[in-house]
Amino acid sequence: MTARHFRSSAPIRFQDCDPAGIVYYPNFINRVEAAIEDWMLEVLGLSYRHWIVEERRALPRVKVSCDFMKPCTMGERLELVLFVVKLGRSSFEVAAEGRVEGELRLRTNLVLVNMSLTTGRAEPFAADLRRKLSDYQSLDTAQT
Amino acid sequence: MTARHFRSSAPIRFQDCDPAGIVYYPNFINRVEAAIEDWMLEVLGLSYRHWIVEERRALPRVKVSCDFMKPCTMGERLELVLFVVKLGRSSFEVAAEGRVEGELRLRTNLVLVNMSLTTGRAEPFAADLRRKLSDYQSLDTAQT
Amino acid sequence: MTARHFRSSAPIRFQDCDPAGIVYYPNFINRVEAAIEDWMLEVLGLSYRHWIVEERRALPRVKVSCDFMKPCTMGERLELVLFVVKLGRSSFEVAAEGRVEGELRLRTNLVLVNMSLTTGRAEPFAADLRRKLSDYQSLDTAQT
Amino acid sequence: MTARHFRSSAPIRFQDCDPAGIVYYPNFINRVEAAIEDWMLEVLGLSYRHWIVEERRALPRVKVSCDFMKPCTMGERLELVLFVVKLGRSSFEVAAEGRVEGELRLRTNLVLVNMSLTTGRAEPFAADLRRKLSDYQSLDTAQT
Repeated sequence: MTARHFRSSAPIRFQDCDPAGIVYYPNFINRVEAAIEDWMLEVLGLSYRHWIVEERRALPRVKVSCDFMKPCTMGERLELVLFVVKLGRSSFEVAAEGRVEGELRLRTNLVLVNMSLTTGRAEPFAADLRRKLSDYQSLDTAQT
Repeated sequence: MTARHFRSSAPIRFQDCDPAGIVYYPNFINRVEAAIEDWMLEVLGLSYRHWIVEERRALPRVKVSCDFMKPCTMGERLELVLFVVKLGRSSFEVAAEGRVEGELRLRTNLVLVNMSLTTGRAEPFAADLRRKLSDYQSLDTAQT
Repeated sequence: MTARHFRSSAPIRFQDCDPAGIVYYPNFINRVEAAIEDWMLEVLGLSYRHWIVEERRALPRVKVSCDFMKPCTMGERLELVLFVVKLGRSSFEVAAEGRVEGELRLRTNLVLVNMSLTTGRAEPFAADLRRKLSDYQSLDTAQT
Repeated sequence: MTARHFRSSAPIRFQDCDPAGIVYYPNFINRVEAAIEDWMLEVLGLSYRHWIVEERRALPRVKVSCDFMKPCTMGERLELVLFVVKLGRSSFEVAAEGRVEGELRLRTNLVLVNMSLTTGRAEPFAADLRRKLSDYQSLDTAQT
């Protein structure tokens, strides 16, 4: 069985770019974070607002790594693909690959921890969320 | 002989923080980038403006990794320490450790490449810049 | 004849919000700027990349004013409506109204100048661009 | 008696600038907001963290207007001067003038409201804060 992927795309804007005319790289991370937010809301059924305000939970990112293969410029369209590369009891690692017309431009890996804002501690994922996350877990070791 | 370090500090601001009341992590990267810019200007004698506009050079970041040990909140003062962990012919890796009152909150490593905007290719560092960078190279493997 | 409007919508994201849980207002301006960029590309046929790099022109904003009627929070969907309120020889004023489920949350007015990057001076709009802009000019003085 | 002013200065950074090599204007607003935060903390004795988290108060900006006289570029040093132009019962208007080597580059006016996060309503300023704000009220009508 193959893993599912979450796809998202958006244009590279003037406001994303720096004096060299290419994306200022922290703005790539904002794009990846926007895609993760959409994936969580649309697929995992996890609204950040509900999660933080009602559930008193957070998903702090404890580790982030990025490889930038080639810059992106204004007017290009960045296609992001998200998938899970590791799924632990109370944390998971999500990868985002960014392409322009099929060409790999960047790869970002983030480790997210399921934390209670009440206790300040990591907690195991609920079974339902864990199951949904596992649908997106890639077994393709070439991708990790 | 011990390596030199570049130190920089700034308050955590309202505009750096998210609805959980802690720093939205890409803003840490902006802080690290501001410190690198100051280090280059004040110590290495490298003005970004001159470098990009006059010299037609760039220092694209090709790899970025961050570990976030503990969040930072509004009103805290973040102290950053920069040092070089690897120095190659045409690239180098700089580490930034972020502390609040001595407590390690984050660690970021960035790989920067010396690129000609004219040829689009990596080029060896000038001897003078390389020598200055080597002053900041830490041999303390515990730090890397 | 009624003026045309350009409509755009996007969710309010975690990354847009501040420690009070509401949009940090400069992020509204980024949204308005993104909508203007889309309007220019999709309707006016003006690609920022082409405009800046090939035509050596810019559209600097010389005046910006914003009224914030009510805050926006995570998870809300902001609908923006753009229209032209003044059209001069070498500048125009565009208004953006932001609503959530029909309720007015913000209003932003921006004055853009048609500037040559070669001469550094304002220049009259080309007849074709001026005609397209005039299609979006609202005569409803209540809106201005 | 002349009004007091709050002064603040910072370099224009690579990360502030756009593909035209000049400051992307919403970043000016971030600078003005940083200066207001420093002014409040250092002079008015008002810590945002304490104000929001402990006092359950906010100072939402309900009106912002900016005039951009001349762009700023990488490596310039922006000097900001803050002063109060109107002081009401539950709101005040602060102006920020931005100069580079004495030359006026921008002017921003912001209206801030003293709001209770508990009731969601505007409330009169405490006498002590009002008195401190009045020290910064400029009577120089040429400046308003």
